[in-house]
Amino acid sequence: MINLDSIFSASKEAFLFYKNVSGKEKSEFLEKLAQILEENRSSIVPLAVKESNLPEGRINGELGRTTGQIKLFSNLLKEGSWVEATIDPADPARAPLPKADIRRMLTPLGPVVVFGASNFPLAFSTAGGDTISALAAGCPVIYKAHPAHPETSRKVADCIHQAILKAGFPSAIFTHLEGGIEIGQGLVKHPTAKALAFTGSHAGGKALFDLANQREEPIPVYAEMGSVNPIFTFAHKLEKELLPLAKAFIGSLTLGVGQFCTNPGLIFVPESQAKAFENAIAAELNDIASAPMLHPGIAQAYYDSIQYLQSREELRWVKVADSKHLLNGSTALAEISASDWLKDTVFQKEVFGAFAMMVVYKNQDELLAIAEKLHGQLTITIWAEAEELKTQLYLINLLEEKCGRLLFKGVPTGVEVGYAMQHGGPYPSTTDSRSTSVGAFGIKRFTRPIAFQDMPFELLPDALKDDNPLGITRLMNGKFEG
Amino acid sequence: MINLDSIFSASKEAFLFYKNVSGKEKSEFLEKLAQILEENRSSIVPLAVKESNLPEGRINGELGRTTGQIKLFSNLLKEGSWVEATIDPADPARAPLPKADIRRMLTPLGPVVVFGASNFPLAFSTAGGDTISALAAGCPVIYKAHPAHPETSRKVADCIHQAILKAGFPSAIFTHLEGGIEIGQGLVKHPTAKALAFTGSHAGGKALFDLANQREEPIPVYAEMGSVNPIFTFAHKLEKELLPLAKAFIGSLTLGVGQFCTNPGLIFVPESQAKAFENAIAAELNDIASAPMLHPGIAQAYYDSIQYLQSREELRWVKVADSKHLLNGSTALAEISASDWLKDTVFQKEVFGAFAMMVVYKNQDELLAIAEKLHGQLTITIWAEAEELKTQLYLINLLEEKCGRLLFKGVPTGVEVGYAMQHGGPYPSTTDSRSTSVGAFGIKRFTRPIAFQDMPFELLPDALKDDNPLGITRLMNGKFEG
Repeated sequence: MINLDSIFSASKEAFLFYKNVSGKEKSEFLEKLAQILEENRSSIVPLAVKESNLPEGRINGELGRTTGQIKLFSNLLKEGSWVEATIDPADPARAPLPKADIRRMLTPLGPVVVFGASNFPLAFSTAGGDTISALAAGCPVIYKAHPAHPETSRKVADCIHQAILKAGFPSAIFTHLEGGIEIGQGLVKHPTAKALAFTGSHAGGKALFDLANQREEPIPVYAEMGSVNPIFTFAHKLEKELLPLAKAFIGSLTLGVGQFCTNPGLIFVPESQAKAFENAIAAELNDIASAPMLHPGIAQAYYDSIQYLQSREELRWVKVADSKHLLNGSTALAEISASDWLKDTVFQKEVFGAFAMMVVYKNQDELLAIAEKLHGQLTITIWAEAEELKTQLYLINLLEEKCGRLLFKGVPTGVEVGYAMQHGGPYPSTTDSRSTSVGAFGIKRFTRPIAFQDMPFELLPDALKDDNPLGITRLMNGKFEG
Repeated sequence: MINLDSIFSASKEAFLFYKNVSGKEKSEFLEKLAQILEENRSSIVPLAVKESNLPEGRINGELGRTTGQIKLFSNLLKEGSWVEATIDPADPARAPLPKADIRRMLTPLGPVVVFGASNFPLAFSTAGGDTISALAAGCPVIYKAHPAHPETSRKVADCIHQAILKAGFPSAIFTHLEGGIEIGQGLVKHPTAKALAFTGSHAGGKALFDLANQREEPIPVYAEMGSVNPIFTFAHKLEKELLPLAKAFIGSLTLGVGQFCTNPGLIFVPESQAKAFENAIAAELNDIASAPMLHPGIAQAYYDSIQYLQSREELRWVKVADSKHLLNGSTALAEISASDWLKDTVFQKEVFGAFAMMVVYKNQDELLAIAEKLHGQLTITIWAEAEELKTQLYLINLLEEKCGRLLFKGVPTGVEVGYAMQHGGPYPSTTDSRSTSVGAFGIKRFTRPIAFQDMPFELLPDALKDDNPLGITRLMNGKFEG
């Protein structure tokens, strides 16, 4: 029996210590964690492969992504400017009233709840981006493992606790829990929880969002709920690069058996190129072998969605899924006219897996209607020649409103972990488009600003001290310095 | 009959233009607006005085605050770095995969709804901080006037439309509406609305928050719902500065007939100084004349709250409110022991008006229990001698978790409009402690990040162009430049 009160009480106590730990110490802790994870690579990888059905190469890469991400946050902390230190010095001579000294910076929110994702057993799970950005911000994490990979999760949690022990931090800055929906709900409802992060289905994310808002004290919810990541293609571009683009599209669609948040499940193709593009992608699809999905539940949901879509007469099937081996995520692709697509929003619902819908548009009016009707997305990709782009500025203007990341080349999968990444788009792709769950700025999700007015200089945090002992970039009287 | 669909449709169309307007042009527009408001001072001020019952001196000052605020945002736009431009350049040579060019900046959310506040007919109303920060961000505003000052609101709206006309912007970037609760609810529910800002009561703010979260697409709600802004006092400090502190406290409490979000309605006093402090503030209170409150509804609510508190035997009344003239906000002050105060959270409920509760504490344990029990506040003030502060580091650590601004001198009223101001604290003082409704960073409430990947250079917004034509400070490969 899990006692959430005592877990949160320990977490809160740990927070009152951990929030005051310097960036340098947190940075060293994260570096140590990255090192311990690397040292345990040979035991972590086989567990994750076994529990996720993902190939070893992919899991090895994902562990590299995980430690790379940890190092990014370590660097961010070492540099230190991320706290947005802002100083408006006093002006005792100001008339009619003297001006007080006010200094503002970001401060951690408190203990936060993180839910693991099934599709990234490492990079979006136990020591994934949500956990690490919260720990970097100074927030203890209460982590609910995804039931699809319990052993992997326990092993990684062990590594985190080794690193905490080495750093001499309270062990309660990270708590690893396993359990079902009730535990998850209990975590979200607990009054000590100050935020929650989640990557998964729309149904799951929305349920947590609603629960968090029904609390006596509502808390921020960062739910990344996936999207269909449409690609808009134009005639000249397709004409010129038909085969490489067909290959790129199918490669991105079927990467990881279509189980990424950013697989492109929707592609808009001009009528003039539709037949040629269809032929090209059909050929590519034939080369893609079926592969096992993450777990039977996900495979079942995939085939249920496909079955429903097969009942819709608006669709013409370029390739039907082969469901002989149910766990295998067989690719599938259907075609629909833009006019039919526009009539029912069910056609833009995400089918988690390697299924895509190719929508054939006739003219600019249809394109603009599509842009208007499109739900919020993590990414939108535009494949157009330079001279085509020039005629599509209004469309681009509309599409900016529908996504967190707009691509003009390449494919949406392969989300870079850097400073400029934005992995969070308008609802329903996430519950908070003001946040990103990938990249350095993910840290800001777990903070709020605090201002100190006329605080005695000896009490000021280092980030706000007059002589800037951290050497960070700060806003002084409205100007960047340092 | 107000047709919200056509209003939002015009607002959305205006947005698709206005979001692309340069910071320089928006800055000029705001400067023009400040100028027009000043030119209309002689007609605005008498209207606001008549409709708010506030004295002319205060309203004159508030107009200055309003135009000062507009100029702050104008300067912010002129400088331009607020968009958080972040560039991770491409690295085509990276192995195993080339790195794409990713550039991120803040982009406006879309049309937003702003509700006027009754207690600041100018600075938190029609051309107040919420409206101006949204317009500065690039968001059209649909403004619902507060019914307490319709004529003032119409006049100021006229000034905004004059400035829009001069700037050549679409008039729908600002829409002035009047109406009751139904109009307000209609605005919040409308699918085109992308955020809302509100300053007012807890009941009002919470209702809007719930409504916004029940939408098909939930939207951010920035409701500033007030707080009791406790002051923690310590024995040596009171001993040394009894009379000036009593004067400062009563001055801040009764400023504007106690109708500020930051009036201190709660003060914690050590037992050793309780009698002396009580005598000192009682003397100060006698010097404060009753003055009319904003409108009869607010006065009625004030006296209703006082009447309820008078039924509570835990309280001892230092001064009872004189309700002979109901519109007059007569001061009132009651004393309670910390042990009684801790037993019922009703004793920390805001009474909007010039009422304060003086809580007498016996020891450190009580102080820590108070800090634990305290609800989220806009501000907390600590009055202590340097050597007392040294012994209160743990208390300060706890109190940081309960407020947006922590003061060590002076009083919480007189909220500076600057860069470092944080006017937004943990719930229930606001619905979003990550935001501020006063100061330059209020602009960020109406934005979200967008990343452009491999965008052709000629399409990039100026803020993200290679040669930095705006000359702003940007994060380049994780380092500040410019």
